[in-house]
Amino acid sequence: MSDELFERGLEIRRAVVGAEYVDRALEGGADDFSRDFQRLVTEFCWGAGWGREEHGALSRRDRSLLNLAMIGTLNRSDEFKLHLRGALRNGCTREEIRDTLIQLAIYAGIPAGVEAFRLAREVFAAVDAESDAASA
Amino acid sequence: MSDELFERGLEIRRAVVGAEYVDRALEGGADDFSRDFQRLVTEFCWGAGWGREEHGALSRRDRSLLNLAMIGTLNRSDEFKLHLRGALRNGCTREEIRDTLIQLAIYAGIPAGVEAFRLAREVFAAVDAESDAASA
Amino acid sequence: MSDELFERGLEIRRAVVGAEYVDRALEGGADDFSRDFQRLVTEFCWGAGWGREEHGALSRRDRSLLNLAMIGTLNRSDEFKLHLRGALRNGCTREEIRDTLIQLAIYAGIPAGVEAFRLAREVFAAVDAESDAASA
Amino acid sequence: MSDELFERGLEIRRAVVGAEYVDRALEGGADDFSRDFQRLVTEFCWGAGWGREEHGALSRRDRSLLNLAMIGTLNRSDEFKLHLRGALRNGCTREEIRDTLIQLAIYAGIPAGVEAFRLAREVFAAVDAESDAASA
Amino acid sequence: MSDELFERGLEIRRAVVGAEYVDRALEGGADDFSRDFQRLVTEFCWGAGWGREEHGALSRRDRSLLNLAMIGTLNRSDEFKLHLRGALRNGCTREEIRDTLIQLAIYAGIPAGVEAFRLAREVFAAVDAESDAASA
Amino acid sequence: MSDELFERGLEIRRAVVGAEYVDRALEGGADDFSRDFQRLVTEFCWGAGWGREEHGALSRRDRSLLNLAMIGTLNRSDEFKLHLRGALRNGCTREEIRDTLIQLAIYAGIPAGVEAFRLAREVFAAVDAESDAASA
Repeated sequence: MSDELFERGLEIRRAVVGAEYVDRALEGGADDFSRDFQRLVTEFCWGAGWGREEHGALSRRDRSLLNLAMIGTLNRSDEFKLHLRGALRNGCTREEIRDTLIQLAIYAGIPAGVEAFRLAREVFAAVDAESDAASA
Repeated sequence: MSDELFERGLEIRRAVVGAEYVDRALEGGADDFSRDFQRLVTEFCWGAGWGREEHGALSRRDRSLLNLAMIGTLNRSDEFKLHLRGALRNGCTREEIRDTLIQLAIYAGIPAGVEAFRLAREVFAAVDAESDAASA
Repeated sequence: MSDELFERGLEIRRAVVGAEYVDRALEGGADDFSRDFQRLVTEFCWGAGWGREEHGALSRRDRSLLNLAMIGTLNRSDEFKLHLRGALRNGCTREEIRDTLIQLAIYAGIPAGVEAFRLAREVFAAVDAESDAASA
Repeated sequence: MSDELFERGLEIRRAVVGAEYVDRALEGGADDFSRDFQRLVTEFCWGAGWGREEHGALSRRDRSLLNLAMIGTLNRSDEFKLHLRGALRNGCTREEIRDTLIQLAIYAGIPAGVEAFRLAREVFAAVDAESDAASA
Repeated sequence: MSDELFERGLEIRRAVVGAEYVDRALEGGADDFSRDFQRLVTEFCWGAGWGREEHGALSRRDRSLLNLAMIGTLNRSDEFKLHLRGALRNGCTREEIRDTLIQLAIYAGIPAGVEAFRLAREVFAAVDAESDAASA
Repeated sequence: MSDELFERGLEIRRAVVGAEYVDRALEGGADDFSRDFQRLVTEFCWGAGWGREEHGALSRRDRSLLNLAMIGTLNRSDEFKLHLRGALRNGCTREEIRDTLIQLAIYAGIPAGVEAFRLAREVFAAVDAESDAASA
């Protein structure tokens, strides 16, 4: 594989979903079972996919909103919450997220929207609590 | 229902997917079977959904890219092609569309990406042919 | 397998989706490749599933509407059209079908609804043409 | 938006999924993030969709069974449980629900059926316990 | 229904997903609500489907890997974990499972793969703990 | 990106889905719009995914059957037909394919199975006609 692509992917992945999560995944990936998969995710999804930001067509903010729409459609709750935090890290406002989830509800159906709003409110409550704790 | 919302939705819908298509759908909707549904789509999806643009969180360009990602995930080819033309009308560049479809391939799977690229190339070829014919 | 269940399934299947279609499928099923599958569909789906009508909880009209909603959600166009004709044979009115498809659009998303209405109008036009030809 | 449609939707929504749940959702919707979405769900899904009952094509019992089939296909467990309670409120018998879920298993696949039966048994056990507690 | 098919299905089902689970499901199926469904699953899915092993085209190992790929695509976590244990009982190695899940990630999308690896590691940890306890 | 992975992927991709198709895709990929995507598919899906065959856990026959099950579940007809031809090239027998599609019908639902059998019979008829023409 390509070490350069892996390194670029690792940097973006840590910046978007959080260094702690990524390091745990890659450490967990240090066992025989997940190592190759974690490498693949980092190199292709983050290096070759998100790494396209250098071409300038889509910003991290754009990619985060696209991911919320797609992962909400695909109905993957854990990944949805992870990428919701990523969207906040990438500077998406709650207004942008709200409008994205309303668009999701219309195109993927009301149950997709109801679940997405429920998960988003959970994440926002957790983020606000962490922020309060940090500033206390 | 709300006439104001319907009118706003009608205006946006015609601007995005084309006046000819919308008028045909609403005329088709003039039979008993589809009338209420066409009204609902115009009012709900376009008036209440796309009409949120007045709040300023998402632009038409943003909504078009979100739709390509969601409709590509949902595997609805006719709607995908309709919204691809809408994306061009809304000013999305081919580079933005290409990067959105690569993101789709990674998150919704390679077959979703292969089909989306095939449909996009079909639409671009048709659009280019129409443009050549118009300028001849 | 159970011949009794197969016979009951065959009778219902022919009544709902049309004797001509079913006989062709089972004949096509006479080659080595599809025979077992056609037998399974007839016995399992039609005999054990639809054959539950003898318990009286759901009517054929109910099962047809459920199928339009599910097959529309699953995005299987050929099966959708087949079962739309089945719904008409089972006595569903166009008003019942229309309201089912509006419910589909709300819960499975607008693109699912748009496609379902398009397919339904195709089937209705074909059925009306056949009916005109028969009465001419 | 249309206040009349919202009011009609609110009344049906409270009757079907429970006043307590709906009031909490709308109160939760009183924060900036969810308010517009809750309004949209109430007005369009419940007012414009379920509110079509006044045309008489589908009963609330019909809509509940359609929803179990669709939401079971869409794999949205929380919404499924909510609408299972709604089905009971709308007068669906357990025999009708059972036959709907068997139809779901056949058309959407065995795993969809296994999960739907598991969730239904959970809801029935909870409902029975509440009923025992209330009559004690 | 066919008692012979049911008996064959029961034997295979107990061998693959575990006698304890199956007996509990069928006992649970002894109530009026689930009995017919459990019978259907055992007879058709296990008797008519898995029971085809006597024709020799696919082994139990093959069917287990196919199921992990399909159930992972369908996003049904409880069934996925059940069939992961089934795959181990059917002699699949962790290397075969790993490569199947990487194939899943590529064709059904990265979120499907991330979730499948997470569930697989959970199951392996539980199986290893049970094995340690048994040998202590 | 990695040239070695691309070259390995290219070789496998040509062997499985046919040199003519792949060369056309990559040539088509020579325009600005698809080039990067075709490179990604070749390197990621075929080089990093299928290229794992060198570890020996899954054979090409195994991967072809997994793909038919997954792509049938995902409802992507063009890709399904492409990979059905790939399965034949990889030495899968029609009996193995038949049993895989019956497994698909049970786990992903009868409509998925009906469509898969229909597509498979189309491909087999085309392949047989080509073979007759070649030997004439």
